[in-house]
Amino acid sequence: MKLFRYRFEGKTLPGVAVDDRHYDLSQHLADIDRAFFEQQLIDRVGALLQSGNLPEITGAIDFDAPVYRPGKIVCIGLNYRRHAAESGMAVPTEPILFFKAASSITGPFDNIVIPRNSQKTDWEVELALVIGKDARYVDAQEAMDYVGGYVLHNDVSERAFQLERGGQWVKGKSCDSFAPIGPYIVTPDEIEDPHKLRLWLSLNGEMLQDGNTSDFIFDIPTVISYVSQFMTLEAGDIISTGTPQGVGLGFDPPRYLKAGDVIALGIDGIGEARQHVVAYPE
Amino acid sequence: MKLFRYRFEGKTLPGVAVDDRHYDLSQHLADIDRAFFEQQLIDRVGALLQSGNLPEITGAIDFDAPVYRPGKIVCIGLNYRRHAAESGMAVPTEPILFFKAASSITGPFDNIVIPRNSQKTDWEVELALVIGKDARYVDAQEAMDYVGGYVLHNDVSERAFQLERGGQWVKGKSCDSFAPIGPYIVTPDEIEDPHKLRLWLSLNGEMLQDGNTSDFIFDIPTVISYVSQFMTLEAGDIISTGTPQGVGLGFDPPRYLKAGDVIALGIDGIGEARQHVVAYPE
Repeated sequence: MKLFRYRFEGKTLPGVAVDDRHYDLSQHLADIDRAFFEQQLIDRVGALLQSGNLPEITGAIDFDAPVYRPGKIVCIGLNYRRHAAESGMAVPTEPILFFKAASSITGPFDNIVIPRNSQKTDWEVELALVIGKDARYVDAQEAMDYVGGYVLHNDVSERAFQLERGGQWVKGKSCDSFAPIGPYIVTPDEIEDPHKLRLWLSLNGEMLQDGNTSDFIFDIPTVISYVSQFMTLEAGDIISTGTPQGVGLGFDPPRYLKAGDVIALGIDGIGEARQHVVAYPE
Repeated sequence: MKLFRYRFEGKTLPGVAVDDRHYDLSQHLADIDRAFFEQQLIDRVGALLQSGNLPEITGAIDFDAPVYRPGKIVCIGLNYRRHAAESGMAVPTEPILFFKAASSITGPFDNIVIPRNSQKTDWEVELALVIGKDARYVDAQEAMDYVGGYVLHNDVSERAFQLERGGQWVKGKSCDSFAPIGPYIVTPDEIEDPHKLRLWLSLNGEMLQDGNTSDFIFDIPTVISYVSQFMTLEAGDIISTGTPQGVGLGFDPPRYLKAGDVIALGIDGIGEARQHVVAYPE
């Protein structure tokens, strides 16, 4: 099944989609958040769907991000061979980790806001995971048990802030609106093999990223196990698994976003999203 | 006044301290968290104190961290001149930012747990701020209006994870128990000048850090304004302002924590804390 959150009359409500039909869960669940995964409420959603009594949502849906305020967003840097090459960086010998701020999360169809003083705002389509239960010192062999679902993520990045302002990447990764996620959290039973998923991103209709998770340097079990050696991955946390080749930084000359641009992106079986690019109001 | 959170009968409850007397707030407030600061409930605490009707807490207090699950913990790297020197790093020309995971937060008297495979767990006494209201593109001149309070923080760091495992510092900064904070959030009215505070840390009774915030490279208004150029600082977020000289990495040879060690630390007017060091259970 596919979990989502949608905006309705000033609130964000939880929902579930099956076979392209969307149902409201707000009479049964407070939200899709850490507590939802911690309490394994996914089983309850399954039972509610089977009951046939959930109200169907008709008409347009205003999607919010499908998980509320994750405790952390852990990103894997340079996890596709050809993206490492285009970034001019060596293939890492162990996963590179960085964080994005939860305050950077936005809905999958919301605007990407170019920050003030930005010249180099860039795109990165990524397959992200939502952690289904707390994970600490997990072996790779059992790591897939900790995946609560898969989600589409645009790891928007300001390259000058990230690479030219001293210190750590976080400056260019955590700007407001720099983490559009969703529309759906897709449960693992719907994805036959997460290591054979095409993912793509187009800018104003021009296909710029077109990769496959089969190009991962570190696969999903390796990544979950690895991160869990350094910190507890909590239910509801997000891990974003890296981006394939085709980001703006990799072009010669580099290409960056400007107000008026339209990004579309998607992953096979996970969903599609679209974001308009706007300038921060002066 | 001083805000705190304490453990009682399996829950964590909010409290307020004035003149070394501690009062329970749990009949009036849900928690000290983002909502507390966002809704400016500090004014309500002041009124409750004046009413004289708050129940006093007698007996030992089991302090938890004084703010619940901040959206982010932003740390300033190398913000004291002599610490930059002992780390063998250049004095930064603009603030270095990194994040710690909120899952690393623990109470001020809780154990520091050395992670598995750690050889280089280190200490860093720091003055941290809790953000009082959302801040975005704030000028340094008005930045102090966004300080909700000051708090003591031990920015525990695993130097091999941080510096020798590839990529970003986050691997060595976000281990569970690596962010003991508290016991108190001290409101700004109690601190005459946050840029003239002695801060110190001892290991098994030996004073190893003994600095003063007057040695800051970037002062508090500069730091708040700077971070707010890259991301919204949300009410309840934490900024940790860096550590003075005297960390284990700076000794020749370096000194690191081992099970059985006891750390004591404090900042003038902000509070004192103490942490026992234990190994992660095998």
